[in-house]
Amino acid sequence: MTKTRVLTGITTTGTPHLGNYVGAIRPAIEASQDTSVEAFYFLADFHALIKAQDPKLVEQSRREIAATWLALGLDTDNATFYRQSDIPEIPELSWLLSCVCAKGLMNRAHAYKAAVHDNEENGSPDPDRGVTMGLYGYPVLMAADILMFNANKVPVGRDQIQHIEMARDMAGRFNHLYKEQYFTLPEAVVDERVEVLNGLDGRKMSKSYNNTIPLFVPEKKLLKLIRKIKTNSLEPGEPKSTEGCTLFQIYSAFASTDQTEAMRTRYAEGIGWGEVKNELFELLNGQLSAPRERYQALLEDPGHIEAVLQQGAEKAREETTRTLERLRSAVGLGRFV
Amino acid sequence: MTKTRVLTGITTTGTPHLGNYVGAIRPAIEASQDTSVEAFYFLADFHALIKAQDPKLVEQSRREIAATWLALGLDTDNATFYRQSDIPEIPELSWLLSCVCAKGLMNRAHAYKAAVHDNEENGSPDPDRGVTMGLYGYPVLMAADILMFNANKVPVGRDQIQHIEMARDMAGRFNHLYKEQYFTLPEAVVDERVEVLNGLDGRKMSKSYNNTIPLFVPEKKLLKLIRKIKTNSLEPGEPKSTEGCTLFQIYSAFASTDQTEAMRTRYAEGIGWGEVKNELFELLNGQLSAPRERYQALLEDPGHIEAVLQQGAEKAREETTRTLERLRSAVGLGRFV
Repeated sequence: MTKTRVLTGITTTGTPHLGNYVGAIRPAIEASQDTSVEAFYFLADFHALIKAQDPKLVEQSRREIAATWLALGLDTDNATFYRQSDIPEIPELSWLLSCVCAKGLMNRAHAYKAAVHDNEENGSPDPDRGVTMGLYGYPVLMAADILMFNANKVPVGRDQIQHIEMARDMAGRFNHLYKEQYFTLPEAVVDERVEVLNGLDGRKMSKSYNNTIPLFVPEKKLLKLIRKIKTNSLEPGEPKSTEGCTLFQIYSAFASTDQTEAMRTRYAEGIGWGEVKNELFELLNGQLSAPRERYQALLEDPGHIEAVLQQGAEKAREETTRTLERLRSAVGLGRFV
Repeated sequence: MTKTRVLTGITTTGTPHLGNYVGAIRPAIEASQDTSVEAFYFLADFHALIKAQDPKLVEQSRREIAATWLALGLDTDNATFYRQSDIPEIPELSWLLSCVCAKGLMNRAHAYKAAVHDNEENGSPDPDRGVTMGLYGYPVLMAADILMFNANKVPVGRDQIQHIEMARDMAGRFNHLYKEQYFTLPEAVVDERVEVLNGLDGRKMSKSYNNTIPLFVPEKKLLKLIRKIKTNSLEPGEPKSTEGCTLFQIYSAFASTDQTEAMRTRYAEGIGWGEVKNELFELLNGQLSAPRERYQALLEDPGHIEAVLQQGAEKAREETTRTLERLRSAVGLGRFV
């Protein structure tokens, strides 16, 4: 009985906020503790270079994201946690796949098409303006990420389904050409119940709206940000609706069912916004202060993060080196014997 | 004083013929013995996958080409001789470069444009029909081949000049973005005096014309092929012109100046074609029989070829691992310390 393999790539750009945590990080970390599957988590730092060309930012973001996931309890004994750039077999596999991947497939990739669309909108004479080969070809690298470990399931957002289909396409083509089931065809797993949090201004919490509450801000800053969350002008004593209320939404994303129900009652009873904000702060701070401390300690001990990642890379490479040797022989690049 | 670095990629498809030998292999092997330069020779076997998807052919061709170059005296003490696919830093660098390489650059590559042109000629609705990402993106891999070793000079045919220019472009862009001279800008070296041999039918010797004389055919077969070379119908005793004569052209490509002049006199004196063919056979066989034997011995000892290549890879990787570590730090993918 082989376990189902689940592979999760972690983007290493930006600073995680509460929305990222609730929507993606928390469920992924819970999944890392599930011993019934074989889980792989990796920092997708090769991918980071597509958008970020400031080495300091790339470097810092990778470190912060690694520290975040470890601080939140990613189970690195049960799951394999590694940094993409520590696995040289991945770019090698990427080349093998590029030789079986039709260019036409990449022409249809959303990110590329969006870039071309923007150029056309802006009246650029060159539809490929500003598009690098990294941006254009990254679905091939992503296929290598997935196929390298023969992942069965890849949890993704809707916008990523296409990439999994592309990986399936390359896997199928390779298997067909080289006449063996070298690769498992991966499946996209889209969690329809993904929790989306609203931000300070009531719109979806997103870096691009500049309305986020970062996950690990200091206590005082957290309180300050929570106080900034937009509410209506109902006074204390007036009954309030939980519907569409950002405070209630964030509260319930962290609270137990009982806590949520109690809060709902208090809304009906006319709790004041200031009090809701205090309660929200207490709830969040209660849950985040321990990981926040671990996070700070980890950031001050990059050597430890490095050691954890090296261990993960070693575990991953036990498999990737073997797999790649087999693939090299498959395509005619084996050693001479 | 650092020595000039010269890098030569060896295509690992097809069986080398006399034309390849005279035009490319022989001068390259002579160059490998030049101690005033630092020479790198590599079997471009990752590139082979673009065109060849029969693993047996890829495998056999690599072995034959390696054996050919070694049998002909490639100086592996002076030069570094390795197999591209043994250097994982090359596909890694290829990814780094793809993130600074404009897609527009690839749109202008000759090989890609030729494929699109063919599709248009054939009325295909998809200009990218049959084009893989390997074919489309291989100038990036080729740039990685060259920049990995900071080669100063790359001997190429006219059709490859563009690729060197593309490598310069990527090198310049990377140096600019990351604010240091990480890469040397390579120069294409086009030898205008390249000797081109004619084949059995008097046209340029080429696999695609099916008119070649393979370099290491058995003696009898060599004689048989030479006897097939097309001549005019002048009888023995009639003076003959050396101008445009395939036999004379091949003869002089292997003969000393004195031998060539002596043969020219005999042409004027009316030597018979049969005699010229015998003389040509003697000359070629005299020069090729020793390497042919070494070639056969090498083919029967693939373990020896492998050992030589592993030694080359080790020598190369002493440098590539260091270089890549530096480049990773440059882009923000260094280790955490």
